[in-house]
Amino acid sequence: MTNDRRVRDIGEFGLIERLSAALPAQVRDGGGLEVGIGDDAAVWQPVAGERVVVTTDSLIENVHFRLDWTDWASLGHKMLAVNISDLAAMGADPKLAFVTLGLRGDERIDDLESLYRGLGALARQHGMIVAGGDVVRSPRAVAFQVTALGNSRRGRVLTRSGANAGDLIGVTGTLGASAAGLRLLALNPTDLRRQAATADRLIEAHLKPEPRVALGTVLLEHGATSAMDLSDGLLGDLPKILSASRVSGRIDERRIPVAAAVRALFADEWIGLAMRGGEDYELLFTAPPGAKAAIERAVQGAGGTATFIGDIVPMESNRPTIEIMGLDNRLRTELPGAFDHFGPAES
Amino acid sequence: MTNDRRVRDIGEFGLIERLSAALPAQVRDGGGLEVGIGDDAAVWQPVAGERVVVTTDSLIENVHFRLDWTDWASLGHKMLAVNISDLAAMGADPKLAFVTLGLRGDERIDDLESLYRGLGALARQHGMIVAGGDVVRSPRAVAFQVTALGNSRRGRVLTRSGANAGDLIGVTGTLGASAAGLRLLALNPTDLRRQAATADRLIEAHLKPEPRVALGTVLLEHGATSAMDLSDGLLGDLPKILSASRVSGRIDERRIPVAAAVRALFADEWIGLAMRGGEDYELLFTAPPGAKAAIERAVQGAGGTATFIGDIVPMESNRPTIEIMGLDNRLRTELPGAFDHFGPAES
Repeated sequence: MTNDRRVRDIGEFGLIERLSAALPAQVRDGGGLEVGIGDDAAVWQPVAGERVVVTTDSLIENVHFRLDWTDWASLGHKMLAVNISDLAAMGADPKLAFVTLGLRGDERIDDLESLYRGLGALARQHGMIVAGGDVVRSPRAVAFQVTALGNSRRGRVLTRSGANAGDLIGVTGTLGASAAGLRLLALNPTDLRRQAATADRLIEAHLKPEPRVALGTVLLEHGATSAMDLSDGLLGDLPKILSASRVSGRIDERRIPVAAAVRALFADEWIGLAMRGGEDYELLFTAPPGAKAAIERAVQGAGGTATFIGDIVPMESNRPTIEIMGLDNRLRTELPGAFDHFGPAES
Repeated sequence: MTNDRRVRDIGEFGLIERLSAALPAQVRDGGGLEVGIGDDAAVWQPVAGERVVVTTDSLIENVHFRLDWTDWASLGHKMLAVNISDLAAMGADPKLAFVTLGLRGDERIDDLESLYRGLGALARQHGMIVAGGDVVRSPRAVAFQVTALGNSRRGRVLTRSGANAGDLIGVTGTLGASAAGLRLLALNPTDLRRQAATADRLIEAHLKPEPRVALGTVLLEHGATSAMDLSDGLLGDLPKILSASRVSGRIDERRIPVAAAVRALFADEWIGLAMRGGEDYELLFTAPPGAKAAIERAVQGAGGTATFIGDIVPMESNRPTIEIMGLDNRLRTELPGAFDHFGPAES
């Protein structure tokens, strides 16, 4: 019986496909929409040359955060940061934020003021305005939702669909710190205290990610062909660029940038945290080999780092593959199955 | 101890004030933002003359809807309609919608496709594009959130703050039908069947409100000085225009437009439903007396009705009041306390 299928039977990506198909064709495209469903953000040209970039992201209690693991100011920072990160991945400048708070009603005012101070400090850092929003009663769980608007007058934006065979694959910063921080948060306090020297920075990477706005602009200006922000882990997100660009990829695990603290604390697992751990909010991008030196220099000039970890190759069948040179110097091939928030179980 | 105060102690509007004050001043204003927190929608001029209008609204299961009272297509219609209605109240043209679905995972795919068909049909009717969104796991309750973008090239938008002493107060359509429909939905099926002849239309007014986009444009073009959409009832929403405009109001209950079906089915309560019932999604507006005839004619030309139900007077103290000429031909004065989704208990 196909008509009794449930969300968790077909998963997040199957659902999005079905829902998009349920819309009339006129509602899916047109009206100055340049980039729609399926990229980090939508791009709209209300008038020719003026690009408005829009993204939205939600954080639900006990799904995306635990109130006993985060302080409220960090949570305010993070709810805005994950949206700014989507704008950064398009090479757009963040401008406005709209905040919806779903509250039970028994939250402390002081805590919510801390939430807004955390959010406000990050908004100020990026020159953003908090322009409105909504407060609704949400009796069963605290939920936050932010919509962020940016703009770009650079003639184009960075999408997921521009990667070409021959391009190099790069990432900013280091990978795995956020996933390592999450593991540390799950430890009991005694175990955690034993690791305190390095733990704090990793926990902060998880609770207070820094969106890479300046680096997104640099990548756009120095010839990157595609970009996205890393929220579902390298092996969860790279397939999205590969699918959108209809290409395959090769990754060299030996070149993945991983912080010394992650390697030290997770001797057996660090490469897994870096390859599959989520919420790094670093930028994953592609660029032609000729742009490599200029990108490295410009990213460094903006206070960041860029590391090239693989390259783009033509797609052999009708599905992208990822060929991985492992730490053990052996080649293996992954058939990407993106991380799905509902399932179905990966095969 | 003030530092243990909770959301329900200070209520929705007290909270919004405190949170806004917790933001750095630079984050609350500037950057081309023309209208910010506190109106139906925010208005942003990314370039001079180009106004982008943004609004966001959420529907939470068992707070804003009950899945046993609505069909999914109507729910899809309504979640977009309440956002379009905010754009209509600004006199803006709806352009883009972004949809966030918070799902448990056990929802039927067929139902969600119906949701999108309902939403898609309304989007098509208004020439809107569904440009993106987000699907998140929300284990405790189904929650929907829509952000809508519109634009306006009419040189201005309709805000809540433009009402002047001497203006007339008007509403489009009739009031109370949605609240009447909600009452009917709460009846048991046998009682409901007895009223079936007129009940259907009232229930539809509640489940599938029609946003007044064409009327908002007409009001803007024919000299209205302020407007908002009626979601919290006339006596809940009029104070928002009065406060924003720093004026008081007078309303004549005998002139409130109420559908015959509402009067017939709710003999004792119809005026209460019309004055305090929410979710009509009609437009409440002010206009100088000289614009009355032109507005009536133009609204009629656009297929609607406009009724003038009172006028604006100077504010006597530092808080707006509403003087009401009752159905009983007696004057009474209301000190507005807007409907609050969290409390505190009204005094």
